Amino acid sequence: MNFASDNTGAVHPKVMEMLQKANEGYAMPYGADAWTAKAEDMVRDVFEAPDAAVFLVSNGTAANSLCLATYANPWDTVFCSRFAHAHVDECNAPEFFAGGIKITTVGEAVDKFSGDDLEQAIAQWDPDNIQNPALGPVSITQITERGTLYSIDEILAITKVAKAHGLMVHMDGARFANASVALNFTAAEITWKSGVGAVSFGGTKNGLMGVEAAILFDAEKAHEFARRRKRGAQRMSKNRYLAAQMVAYLTDDLWRETAAAANSAAAQLVKGLNAIEGVTLPFKPEANMVYAWMPRRIHERLKDAGAMYYIEAGQLVGDDPEELLLARFVCDWAVKDAEIDRFLEVAAS
Amino acid sequence: MNFASDNTGAVHPKVMEMLQKANEGYAMPYGADAWTAKAEDMVRDVFEAPDAAVFLVSNGTAANSLCLATYANPWDTVFCSRFAHAHVDECNAPEFFAGGIKITTVGEAVDKFSGDDLEQAIAQWDPDNIQNPALGPVSITQITERGTLYSIDEILAITKVAKAHGLMVHMDGARFANASVALNFTAAEITWKSGVGAVSFGGTKNGLMGVEAAILFDAEKAHEFARRRKRGAQRMSKNRYLAAQMVAYLTDDLWRETAAAANSAAAQLVKGLNAIEGVTLPFKPEANMVYAWMPRRIHERLKDAGAMYYIEAGQLVGDDPEELLLARFVCDWAVKDAEIDRFLEVAAS
Amino acid sequence: MNFASDNTGAVHPKVMEMLQKANEGYAMPYGADAWTAKAEDMVRDVFEAPDAAVFLVSNGTAANSLCLATYANPWDTVFCSRFAHAHVDECNAPEFFAGGIKITTVGEAVDKFSGDDLEQAIAQWDPDNIQNPALGPVSITQITERGTLYSIDEILAITKVAKAHGLMVHMDGARFANASVALNFTAAEITWKSGVGAVSFGGTKNGLMGVEAAILFDAEKAHEFARRRKRGAQRMSKNRYLAAQMVAYLTDDLWRETAAAANSAAAQLVKGLNAIEGVTLPFKPEANMVYAWMPRRIHERLKDAGAMYYIEAGQLVGDDPEELLLARFVCDWAVKDAEIDRFLEVAAS
Amino acid sequence: MNFASDNTGAVHPKVMEMLQKANEGYAMPYGADAWTAKAEDMVRDVFEAPDAAVFLVSNGTAANSLCLATYANPWDTVFCSRFAHAHVDECNAPEFFAGGIKITTVGEAVDKFSGDDLEQAIAQWDPDNIQNPALGPVSITQITERGTLYSIDEILAITKVAKAHGLMVHMDGARFANASVALNFTAAEITWKSGVGAVSFGGTKNGLMGVEAAILFDAEKAHEFARRRKRGAQRMSKNRYLAAQMVAYLTDDLWRETAAAANSAAAQLVKGLNAIEGVTLPFKPEANMVYAWMPRRIHERLKDAGAMYYIEAGQLVGDDPEELLLARFVCDWAVKDAEIDRFLEVAAS
Repeated sequence: MNFASDNTGAVHPKVMEMLQKANEGYAMPYGADAWTAKAEDMVRDVFEAPDAAVFLVSNGTAANSLCLATYANPWDTVFCSRFAHAHVDECNAPEFFAGGIKITTVGEAVDKFSGDDLEQAIAQWDPDNIQNPALGPVSITQITERGTLYSIDEILAITKVAKAHGLMVHMDGARFANASVALNFTAAEITWKSGVGAVSFGGTKNGLMGVEAAILFDAEKAHEFARRRKRGAQRMSKNRYLAAQMVAYLTDDLWRETAAAANSAAAQLVKGLNAIEGVTLPFKPEANMVYAWMPRRIHERLKDAGAMYYIEAGQLVGDDPEELLLARFVCDWAVKDAEIDRFLEVAAS
Repeated sequence: MNFASDNTGAVHPKVMEMLQKANEGYAMPYGADAWTAKAEDMVRDVFEAPDAAVFLVSNGTAANSLCLATYANPWDTVFCSRFAHAHVDECNAPEFFAGGIKITTVGEAVDKFSGDDLEQAIAQWDPDNIQNPALGPVSITQITERGTLYSIDEILAITKVAKAHGLMVHMDGARFANASVALNFTAAEITWKSGVGAVSFGGTKNGLMGVEAAILFDAEKAHEFARRRKRGAQRMSKNRYLAAQMVAYLTDDLWRETAAAANSAAAQLVKGLNAIEGVTLPFKPEANMVYAWMPRRIHERLKDAGAMYYIEAGQLVGDDPEELLLARFVCDWAVKDAEIDRFLEVAAS
Repeated sequence: MNFASDNTGAVHPKVMEMLQKANEGYAMPYGADAWTAKAEDMVRDVFEAPDAAVFLVSNGTAANSLCLATYANPWDTVFCSRFAHAHVDECNAPEFFAGGIKITTVGEAVDKFSGDDLEQAIAQWDPDNIQNPALGPVSITQITERGTLYSIDEILAITKVAKAHGLMVHMDGARFANASVALNFTAAEITWKSGVGAVSFGGTKNGLMGVEAAILFDAEKAHEFARRRKRGAQRMSKNRYLAAQMVAYLTDDLWRETAAAANSAAAQLVKGLNAIEGVTLPFKPEANMVYAWMPRRIHERLKDAGAMYYIEAGQLVGDDPEELLLARFVCDWAVKDAEIDRFLEVAAS
Repeated sequence: MNFASDNTGAVHPKVMEMLQKANEGYAMPYGADAWTAKAEDMVRDVFEAPDAAVFLVSNGTAANSLCLATYANPWDTVFCSRFAHAHVDECNAPEFFAGGIKITTVGEAVDKFSGDDLEQAIAQWDPDNIQNPALGPVSITQITERGTLYSIDEILAITKVAKAHGLMVHMDGARFANASVALNFTAAEITWKSGVGAVSFGGTKNGLMGVEAAILFDAEKAHEFARRRKRGAQRMSKNRYLAAQMVAYLTDDLWRETAAAANSAAAQLVKGLNAIEGVTLPFKPEANMVYAWMPRRIHERLKDAGAMYYIEAGQLVGDDPEELLLARFVCDWAVKDAEIDRFLEVAAS
């Protein structure tokens, strides 16, 4: 019963097979191999973006930081949600990779922000006042850090505001697959067709071993990104093994299959939680992540039974059995129905 | 016939097996898993350094840059060979990770430097003159970028000078295994027992998929390194897959077995090259890397036959068949005797 | 009628005299001169801090950025008001000098924050979670960017919280003199005796040509600051001319005399504004800076009469003569009673 | 007898007068004043560069670092002499301001380098190899750190090579005036007319209190420079006092008058030194800086007599009275004939 994150599960067997397949003979290093070329082409195909620049990196922090650094001057401010991974969970990596940018958080809502929120956040800085930071790229997370989704209309509202100010919009798609499946839109539709300029296309949380693709739809800054990737220690010598993972991911829509499995598991979990007295879900779970307020007594039972998940607000240890603590549950592609059933059984008992 | 580098070869089957073995069920992310603990312990055991801090990262640039950044203030100068990978092949990554350090090259020899060379390089900066950079760590490469070795005495001469100036000595051990085997000294003997403070312990060039261990023998700066690793996008969520590679590497001395194979292949190559008229070896090949001056006509034959390797000085295309061009050949663990034989046959024909 | 800022006025005649006096013969550069030694001693005397390290720099951005960089790791977050100069008016200089820190704003109030606000801001980051930024120094501004003051008790409340978390408190004292006079406390009382660890002690806004002193009460990090100052291009060769300004400033309490004059002028302005129908002061003006909401028609009259000041909210051009626009008025040491009278006359007409 | 540097002397009286003149009434801050506009225009006039962007900063380290940072990507290498101030005397300021560049030293000669030297230095990096640093700006120092001059032809040889590689050439003109006078060429001739793209135009070493002008002949990067200047804490609020110095400097050719005085004093010194038995001048003194090997006994006499200058090689204290120590003497505008006579008398006695 591991719902701690979608990075705790195993690598999908098909990915392991592809790694094995790639492990034949010699291949030129640093991406000058056939696997890398194929992986990049497949990403371009999936995103219907034949001119995009694609770069494989080893994790989401790298993809986000390199994308933002490529589009931000060091004297810029980047705009993102106050709960964006890039802001709260990367130990200042974007600030580091971008040479000292400032992050301006947008909106008060915990999970996502609107075009109006962005307009308001931008308004606090005067681009003609050289004392203020200059305006840099906007980053949105899809699915959000609270398990909700930006609809196409919501993305369009944001990119419209950004465009009016000349700002590039980046999408942190650590769980892009889950979003694409949940929204039932193509990769192109929820990105460049909606005005998004760069994407961190996640794989690690959805069945890969450790690969994300940074995609720049306008390849103009491709060379700069390549330099930044090398200087940022994200250019792998044995790149074929990153590429093989991505090839497996995009072959026969595996990426959507695993995401669908994770989303479906979460839906099952949501259904069960909603049926339990005293449990409330503060955010509408739209993909594979679920937040729930539950009384301490339920948490105690679950933890005793070995369930793994994070308590995001409150402390497990305490006197009042009815005190509500906020839990986060994340489902990955491999979670089994039986585990969810057992989990719900324990929770409801 | 791929002698382009030791990062062009396949991953060792035992490593693939261990990855498969690690691919079972759930494991907590970011190194809070049993595989990581085991890998770190095994590194400590191999280096006979129970108190060392061990960090797995995805490549040598990361290991080098993070080690140097951890021991250098941004206003320091780092000392290394003018052909050190950290200086010439990492696109300013050490300068980036360390926040703007200066690199001072030591010695005129292309491959390694002496304690006296270091003393002289240090002497050009006055640590009491605040206009000069301050003195930072020293980095040596073992085996060197030219395929030669630092003997224990040579290391001691360097660490003695460094110590007298209060400077930490880092060893770039991208090919540490090849050195350890060639010198027939233990990992401890050629590092901390000889005064080395931190090591980039390479695996990628010796049969792994993409893992290096940064080892700090004095763990005092372990927390800083951990922060820098996270901020530097080198803290992997599915760390068990890095760890499993390292576990395989250190199990039953696989790391020494693969290095011995590579060294032995290089020795075979050297023997053959030495027997060919018109071929000279400018550096004494002591491990798995060989430099050779060869006339253009031999290069042409080899390239026509599909041999892969870098020409480090001169151009393949040219009129004079007797013009000497400098080649670099690197053997990895997997190169077959037959390939070397065929290569030598073509070269000698 | 220039109330645009306290950096628009002339240099005090006594400062010009001291510069003239310093302009005799030769003096060793980079602070190795008698004027620098004297200035540093006088600062230490005024602050009753014989062991403090004192560094002259050319502006407040430099003093703030170097102080924060000296006490923050690049992976830290600094805490300050959302209207702190270091956050909004230095174009990411603190982020730059400190190598990529994050700034966390404290409190919702525009002018200052409380110990509780700080506790709450700190609570959003978990120092044991390596994904979060680590906790860095706290910066408070005295007088605040809205013209109000931190009382000794308010400072103590903040430094108590900071101390409990092991955090250094920096005071941006660009208008320190105005605060010291207004509060009627000594320089020591409102700094180290109240738990403050480092101060940017302003002179430029109070009659000097361009000098601020960065003061570290604990000199342990003095050498690091010195390196950072040099590397940050703030170590002046002809330092005697910075020092002479500071000597003039601290001789016969000139610094308090000029601050008293500025505060008194502002009090006169406040008295007059309060008497004008339709004018309201949103922040209690406690030193030399006054914010006032005034109807457009008054602004128009004032601007027509040549008054210089910033409109901080709203646009001068508009249809509704009664619309309220927010003005900021700052008095310097040199403003004349007659000018204030004339200003108030125009405003009230 | 102070020959320690040309930054030890007093500010020229005409500069003090202009500062006094500027000290009237109110002026808008941060360069939005009439003095700044006038100073910038005068610089443009002197350099016959009506479209150039001009920025006043407080010292040469700032001017150099900001110029180089504006033209270098963080992954570039800058090229300069191994004795360039930017390399050896700025405590990594260029590396800091430019976000982690590498400095490649050019040539073996201590004082200046040739176009061929530059070609050779560039050749060591392959711009198509992403592991190497990319090629960044070239910096030359005029007059050099050893008191010699680049002729127009020598500059042209360098800028020709740079241009062929697409590299901007920066001139560190801390002693630009001395060079201009010594060469008897106009400011335009030794800069943009010879292919130089940006200049640090020094004033501090030639009679000002502390001002240098950074000049970008192509203003395309002016906005970037402005942002970098602000972020680098070099945008002064009371900018009129920097500007007034520059206005005085360029009024009635004061800058050339003071430089001529300094050069002339140095020539007098050279003449005297050449006449002393046992004294040799290793570099041809062409402006206001003189290097001389002199036996210890002469140094002892001079130091006893109170002469101030740096010994650049060797130690004053020692047994052998005939041992040669290398001295550096720098003359500023104010040095008196009588002092040089007395100095030479002591030296020759």
